Amino acid sequence: MLISKSFIPILKNNPSEAKIKSHQLMLRVGMIKQSSAGIYSWLPLGFKVMKKIEQIVREEQNKIGAQEILMPTIQSSEIWKESGRYEDYGEEMLRIKDRQDREMLYGPTNEELVTDIFRSSIKSYKSLPQLLYHIQWKFRDEIRPRFGIMRCREFYMKDAYSFDVSDEEALFSYNKFFISYLKTFKRLDLTAIPMAADTGPIGGNLSHEFIILAETGESKIFTDKRIFDVESEGTELNKNSLNDLRKKFEQFYSVTDEKFNKEEFETKVNEKNRLITKGIEVGHIFYFGDKYSKPMGGSVDLPEGKKDFVKMGSYGIGVSRLVGAIIEAKYDEKDEVMKWPISVAPYDVSIIPMINKNDISALDKANRINLELEKNNIEAIIDDTDENFSSKIKKMNLIGAPYQIIIGKQSKDDHIEFKEVGKDSKKIKLSEVIKIIKEQKAKY
Amino acid sequence: MLISKSFIPILKNNPSEAKIKSHQLMLRVGMIKQSSAGIYSWLPLGFKVMKKIEQIVREEQNKIGAQEILMPTIQSSEIWKESGRYEDYGEEMLRIKDRQDREMLYGPTNEELVTDIFRSSIKSYKSLPQLLYHIQWKFRDEIRPRFGIMRCREFYMKDAYSFDVSDEEALFSYNKFFISYLKTFKRLDLTAIPMAADTGPIGGNLSHEFIILAETGESKIFTDKRIFDVESEGTELNKNSLNDLRKKFEQFYSVTDEKFNKEEFETKVNEKNRLITKGIEVGHIFYFGDKYSKPMGGSVDLPEGKKDFVKMGSYGIGVSRLVGAIIEAKYDEKDEVMKWPISVAPYDVSIIPMINKNDISALDKANRINLELEKNNIEAIIDDTDENFSSKIKKMNLIGAPYQIIIGKQSKDDHIEFKEVGKDSKKIKLSEVIKIIKEQKAKY
Repeated sequence: MLISKSFIPILKNNPSEAKIKSHQLMLRVGMIKQSSAGIYSWLPLGFKVMKKIEQIVREEQNKIGAQEILMPTIQSSEIWKESGRYEDYGEEMLRIKDRQDREMLYGPTNEELVTDIFRSSIKSYKSLPQLLYHIQWKFRDEIRPRFGIMRCREFYMKDAYSFDVSDEEALFSYNKFFISYLKTFKRLDLTAIPMAADTGPIGGNLSHEFIILAETGESKIFTDKRIFDVESEGTELNKNSLNDLRKKFEQFYSVTDEKFNKEEFETKVNEKNRLITKGIEVGHIFYFGDKYSKPMGGSVDLPEGKKDFVKMGSYGIGVSRLVGAIIEAKYDEKDEVMKWPISVAPYDVSIIPMINKNDISALDKANRINLELEKNNIEAIIDDTDENFSSKIKKMNLIGAPYQIIIGKQSKDDHIEFKEVGKDSKKIKLSEVIKIIKEQKAKY
Repeated sequence: MLISKSFIPILKNNPSEAKIKSHQLMLRVGMIKQSSAGIYSWLPLGFKVMKKIEQIVREEQNKIGAQEILMPTIQSSEIWKESGRYEDYGEEMLRIKDRQDREMLYGPTNEELVTDIFRSSIKSYKSLPQLLYHIQWKFRDEIRPRFGIMRCREFYMKDAYSFDVSDEEALFSYNKFFISYLKTFKRLDLTAIPMAADTGPIGGNLSHEFIILAETGESKIFTDKRIFDVESEGTELNKNSLNDLRKKFEQFYSVTDEKFNKEEFETKVNEKNRLITKGIEVGHIFYFGDKYSKPMGGSVDLPEGKKDFVKMGSYGIGVSRLVGAIIEAKYDEKDEVMKWPISVAPYDVSIIPMINKNDISALDKANRINLELEKNNIEAIIDDTDENFSSKIKKMNLIGAPYQIIIGKQSKDDHIEFKEVGKDSKKIKLSEVIKIIKEQKAKY
């Protein structure tokens, strides 16, 4: 992609309305544009990152046998009255009357709707377990939207739902999502810690939040440092292996604000291991048994001939929010250098040729290099403007491709200047550049 | 995918509420489930087809240099007041008040919002042309939703917008979308005819609808039969070649209802070439110059130093509607046989093993075949139930994979029974099956 043809409206300075660095960078480099309070359009650069995150989330859901569906954004109030949450949900629910004066709403979550789908389709324990997920826009009418897409009103979320015949099977499903979340965040190059959490308006008695550490996070967390060393590699998709993994995490105290108990913290965690800090919630999983299936009549025939309500859990990942969370984790706002994880980078590499009005040989070389990269499925962005070198570097540092190729005016031999962002540059052959980038891409 | 693990809730009989065959099949085979009037959930089978259509639409947009963005579903009324359409749009617009009592709406289309993005980002003719598109849910509050997802309220649509410095350049953009639409529909194995059309509430003076013939269509069309023979192969992405293509189509009279003029029809079309029939609109493109850029102030600096309003067009494809349109074109409702085009089929092939309680050797063979198919990126669905042969065939005919592999109880040699739906079966080796399917997939 030539930068002159792209739609990447970069601002000269940080926008003053943005208080946290993800919001700053996203507006600065034209990833998003606010369309009204807490509602954003995703411009090409932001869109590319979000789509890559979405695809990783999808792949990890598919790997545990979850099936993708797509529920609508607009729901009828009737199913919410059945579950009893229509009144409870309060003003965060965007309530709508259609032209026939029917009470509708913009779904903030989908426990009711998916239970309705389940109850009309599945009748026997033989068809269980069922793991269903969708990736869809949600709306929560925040009273004070802020921090860009981190606390906005219309947001993009993956929510999954499990249906099982017993508590034991349901916990197996819960644990499948537990490992799938760890793998998802790892592929995004994030360290996300599962923490015992409050269930809030979703309900139930078992819940984990997945939190990444960040100064600007809104969740206060209390944890035993050693939890960061727990390894999930080698976990298999069976009951025992998944139970063992949960236990390995749960031996270390690790909770969010609402679950915090000072005495317990101080008893269980040696002083030198205590960590009190802030984090960003990027995923949240819940087990709530028959909280929805019972009032809504979601039951199945059991082997012995009786009927019972299915046991359900729900599992959310904030897809749009992850774009911001990754920036919070990876952006050096002092030097204004972003380095996207290769798995979700909008471009793998930026190519910066030095161009004179009378000498475009460096641009020709850039285009030739780009053709080779394309053949290897490496996506590059080329700065084909005639700006000076330092302003080009500044721009590419904001766009955040993790690798850079710099082509000077006199660059004639077959070695090119190649740099991983944050490291020293080196002169190597194009074939080596391709090898390095391909190896990194294969890792995630 | 084993059918016993899938979420494909098939009904025994056609649902009585469905009047047209796409609606019947989609409910019957569990592709969709209605959640409220004119609003549907997409279950795994329907979702898979829609996603494949979406991906083809996306690829063809990218090929003409359009860049993907994503605008939100909820818009502020303010920009619609700027363009003057807020009052005009009438009751089909779903109007919403948020908790702060602000007037919002669920976007039925995005001319205003994209113009707002453009005007705040692009200042110079040097950055033109810009082709931006998004694939997003829209809402039109139909007074009488019907025909399933063919005339529903919440629907999935690709809408693109072009911005150019002059009428001439804008027509070049228009023609790029014209060819890209022809290519898109061809990959869906549909014959879509571009017809001069009315511009309706979008405005402008140049417009084409892309129509596929179908008895159940809502558009009445009047056309010269010879238009079906126009070839678009070999058209290149330059002004002349695209102009020539437009001319080749426009030499034949071909209009929808609103544009019909009896005298003109009878003068221009020889009696034997006249065709009056019905069709389904699957795409619609518009050129409307500065209709939105002028009231909303979307202008750029010109080379000579003056400013001018950009010339815009918009271009829509109904992604969810295409699922139904393909069924209308391909489903034989008398024999209850669906055959999806291989490019969007939910599965490439169905495997039907004959299973006894005491003999599952055919299922073992099915699983072994499936492993080989997977290695070749061929997706199969296996009927692993112990139902009888005819009910298995019935089910697979509804699901609609274009190929079937039948494994009898005594199937021991290395030839398997292979059938393209609608043709005779033959006994061939698995390697040949793979070759046939791969060749077909590569074509689209």
